[in-house]
Amino acid sequence: MVRWEPGARERLQAAALERFGARGFDGTTVAEIAAAAGLTERTFFRHFADKREVLFAGQDEFERLFVAGIEEAETTDPVAIIAVALDGAAAFFPDDRRSWSRMRQVVIDADPGLQERELLKLSGLATTMTGALRRRGFDATAAALAAESGVAVFRVGFATWIAEGEDRPLAAILRAVLAELRSLVCAPRT
Amino acid sequence: MVRWEPGARERLQAAALERFGARGFDGTTVAEIAAAAGLTERTFFRHFADKREVLFAGQDEFERLFVAGIEEAETTDPVAIIAVALDGAAAFFPDDRRSWSRMRQVVIDADPGLQERELLKLSGLATTMTGALRRRGFDATAAALAAESGVAVFRVGFATWIAEGEDRPLAAILRAVLAELRSLVCAPRT
Repeated sequence: MVRWEPGARERLQAAALERFGARGFDGTTVAEIAAAAGLTERTFFRHFADKREVLFAGQDEFERLFVAGIEEAETTDPVAIIAVALDGAAAFFPDDRRSWSRMRQVVIDADPGLQERELLKLSGLATTMTGALRRRGFDATAAALAAESGVAVFRVGFATWIAEGEDRPLAAILRAVLAELRSLVCAPRT
Repeated sequence: MVRWEPGARERLQAAALERFGARGFDGTTVAEIAAAAGLTERTFFRHFADKREVLFAGQDEFERLFVAGIEEAETTDPVAIIAVALDGAAAFFPDDRRSWSRMRQVVIDADPGLQERELLKLSGLATTMTGALRRRGFDATAAALAAESGVAVFRVGFATWIAEGEDRPLAAILRAVLAELRSLVCAPRT
């Protein structure tokens, strides 16, 4: 018998993060997460393949937002295309997700295996974006450079978004970081 | 009794790569690598902590070249500083290393664990470069962006350097890729 548990996914994510923070990622079991959320292990596994997936769920949707931005941008300027993609991706991180993202980062920073997983995710994003840019007619080098630059802006902007005391929305931060990249690269200080 | 084996390190690296290519990374033991090089396991472990280190040895020297470039560049233009750092790092990959680097990439591309290790290495490089740029007076965001851009140029340029049929030296490729980044970011096509 499969029962529908309203909000089960969010309860499991909140419970998992709380346990990971208190006991470490390795020190936490799926059984403990499920119990802390008042749910069964079976319910856990209906939502996540394993405990690591609690931290990395949504990768497809995340990449899809970047790709949609690249495909839909009504410009051929690569920086403007990346700006549209970043705007789209920012929608994945509304402000009510910021404190969860902060806690998630603490858990990831404490575990080299999770750091590697996060890097692999961002590297996969760069590869996916490179493909989308090539389909828009950029050559291999230009597409790779624009994609890597977009990911770099996202990484720097995301770290700023979850920094203590920061309260600007992610979209605004990403726009500011992209503008700073342009100013850094294009305005020689001699 | 410790014997000095001239060229032992290079023989071990060549033998390891040949075995990894033929049998896969997981399918190769240190004993086999040592035997293929005509050396003992004890000699292997004088040169490398484990078989993975054969593929990743030299990280400290590699990072040191980037940092030295950042420290020594006689300019305050961030792109020019990155250019000096990339020039310095290119010295780590002379042309007679290209075929070894090509084979190494094939081995890494075939193994997710090695890919993660490679990403962690490049992420560490970006962090180290960010630190060096901050010591040169760039603020946190500018330093991180310049470092990430430098690593992106290195990644794209290195992939070009080891591509089949490519024969330009790495330093020349990195200069061309950096110029392309500048042109991409600074020359709107509307």
